[in-house]
Amino acid sequence: MRKRLVILGSSGSIGRTAIGLVRGDPRFEVVGLAVNSSAGSVLRDAADLGVKHVAIVDGAAADAASRDLPAGVTLHRGEAGLVEVASLGADVVLCSIVGMAGLRPVLAAIDAGSDIALATKEVLVSAGEAVMTRRLQRGVRILPIDSEHSAVFQALQGAAYDVFCCRQPGSGLLRAEEAVRRLILTASGGPFFFRPDVDFDAVTVEEALCHPKWSMGRKITIDSATMMNKGLEIMEARWLFNVPEERIEVLVHPESIVHSIVEFGDLTQIAELSEPDMAFAINYALSWPRRLPHNVNKPLDLARAGALHFTQPDERRFPCLALARQALRLGGTAPAVLNAANEVAVGAFLDGRIRFSDIWRIVEKVLSDARIQPAQDLDSVFAADAAARAAACSACRAAGVV
Amino acid sequence: MRKRLVILGSSGSIGRTAIGLVRGDPRFEVVGLAVNSSAGSVLRDAADLGVKHVAIVDGAAADAASRDLPAGVTLHRGEAGLVEVASLGADVVLCSIVGMAGLRPVLAAIDAGSDIALATKEVLVSAGEAVMTRRLQRGVRILPIDSEHSAVFQALQGAAYDVFCCRQPGSGLLRAEEAVRRLILTASGGPFFFRPDVDFDAVTVEEALCHPKWSMGRKITIDSATMMNKGLEIMEARWLFNVPEERIEVLVHPESIVHSIVEFGDLTQIAELSEPDMAFAINYALSWPRRLPHNVNKPLDLARAGALHFTQPDERRFPCLALARQALRLGGTAPAVLNAANEVAVGAFLDGRIRFSDIWRIVEKVLSDARIQPAQDLDSVFAADAAARAAACSACRAAGVV
Repeated sequence: MRKRLVILGSSGSIGRTAIGLVRGDPRFEVVGLAVNSSAGSVLRDAADLGVKHVAIVDGAAADAASRDLPAGVTLHRGEAGLVEVASLGADVVLCSIVGMAGLRPVLAAIDAGSDIALATKEVLVSAGEAVMTRRLQRGVRILPIDSEHSAVFQALQGAAYDVFCCRQPGSGLLRAEEAVRRLILTASGGPFFFRPDVDFDAVTVEEALCHPKWSMGRKITIDSATMMNKGLEIMEARWLFNVPEERIEVLVHPESIVHSIVEFGDLTQIAELSEPDMAFAINYALSWPRRLPHNVNKPLDLARAGALHFTQPDERRFPCLALARQALRLGGTAPAVLNAANEVAVGAFLDGRIRFSDIWRIVEKVLSDARIQPAQDLDSVFAADAAARAAACSACRAAGVV
Repeated sequence: MRKRLVILGSSGSIGRTAIGLVRGDPRFEVVGLAVNSSAGSVLRDAADLGVKHVAIVDGAAADAASRDLPAGVTLHRGEAGLVEVASLGADVVLCSIVGMAGLRPVLAAIDAGSDIALATKEVLVSAGEAVMTRRLQRGVRILPIDSEHSAVFQALQGAAYDVFCCRQPGSGLLRAEEAVRRLILTASGGPFFFRPDVDFDAVTVEEALCHPKWSMGRKITIDSATMMNKGLEIMEARWLFNVPEERIEVLVHPESIVHSIVEFGDLTQIAELSEPDMAFAINYALSWPRRLPHNVNKPLDLARAGALHFTQPDERRFPCLALARQALRLGGTAPAVLNAANEVAVGAFLDGRIRFSDIWRIVEKVLSDARIQPAQDLDSVFAADAAARAAACSACRAAGVV
């Protein structure tokens, strides 16, 4: 009954936490690991966990790794290698690759019949319709790792509601339209929500990377600061739970203890709470439908927390929220365009090439200039993504501060 | 697929709310009603809902009712009549009778094969072991209506945990020992928790009846003010969910929006939230395992609430909490003794015969003087209850202010 596990993005924040959870746990066997360029990290993990398949995307890093590859370990190189490891037919493929780069391996893992533990929200943001259709055809599950979506997923467990959405038409389970009145995604607000004096033209990379609650990768931390992260999560939730955009709300909750809330048709709200640590959501995705104990000793003490605060988001100060809703309502390739432009703009900001506030200006411009197409097939998604990246690069150059 | 329903205590706060929920709803058919003495109320409801069986416990009230009994309605009189209506074999018998008076009708309803929607916590406080054993033998369910226990029940729905406790040994469901780390029962704190200056010797009946959040009957409102209500709820939870006393905690939460929390073995907490209105818990108990929509238009807006506060209870200022835990640890008939003494003392306080602080002094004295017996059989429970009532009456006379 061991769960065979592949971890894509094993050197990142989510990957490290996942390895910390399953290392030494006889209920899990890690059969594949993949990184972009952290060869040393992935080889250490492979030796430590006895993993036979390792993918390294970056060519130079793969070359370096091939020189001291341990006996019995197969090295898979490049994007193709990433897809090979994703296709091993594991029970669960955990994907925590940053951005759209996660899409092809996730599709490959679905095709190989693996369940997906998904941290890479961009996969559903850009290609939600196509991915969910493929998932349905192959009969595999997408288990959310984003803490908000994990909370929603947990809150839905008790409902007579098919959380894998339309598994079998007519199965007698409630549809979201009947069961769920609202999904309420909580948001810490990031570093700037509670600082109304901050000049978004002058924010430095260091200030934007200083998240008050969550320790995460650089890209998602910037997305948190712009609140685009919450916009992306609205899109992710729309596909994961098959709930229309207008029923997905955002609630700023600075303590990041209530991870999200489902409001059911009877006006009852079910919430999931824990200390802010991604280990809990990762553990749930890996052990679902059970709740396995783990080695993360962070019990929640609400009396010590004292108070949980809630307030409405401010879409005028944080235009990314409205942009994300606009893209979701436009439909088709619009979310892929928004996501591509955002990835490029965040990268340019992290490189010091544009200002913080240029991020949403560039996203808005690329989105309004793009020709939106239907997105049922993946080719249109990839084409829209590529075109939007090119447009965003031009826009970054035009806005460039250096 | 109509649910046939009996409501015991139809003139009280819970009963009125339940009738408001099911009136005109084709999914429910009320087949029996019972009251203590509110003859006018029960006859109006019987006519309104087309109910054929009505019980009135009080002799004079029953006499009055018999004189203008509508055609087709059968009047059941006295304690025996209450048991007759409870025994009609309805799908669900909702019991919201105040205090130990609910025990015999609940047992009768279990014997008739009805599920119990239980608001009368004293039934489980006094005779938890015997009632749960009987429930198990008859294969019926006890659906909690106390908002805290409804919250726990809802939070447990998603867990691989038999919320009806030991339905079938070896059924593969998790036992509480594995699945549940803590039950966290929230408490508003009542009118006095946040007023450290209050002199408990001088509290008036009006002050004690002025509950900040919940609109409830008089007995439970006084229990809220002494916090004995939370002690009784610890006992109720111990039997309902088969979780040992040391894993049941109390958390003061003055907004009464989080109704209770389950902490699972993975340290995740699942909470149930709503505006404080018993209609939600009643509706859940009546519609379980579904969540039926209803006519109570009170959506919860956490942003408008702004903040939820949590703090530890103070067992020195509110000795009833410690007394309840002591009775539960003593086991056997000790909880029945505590409950009987409390019912008598609360009655005496409401009648102006003892001081507010005498309530816990009398409970403590009766409990420490009592000879505790095993409580597997109901005769010992009734005997302990009767002896404790007599002892509490004496103690009230001794403490009497008038």
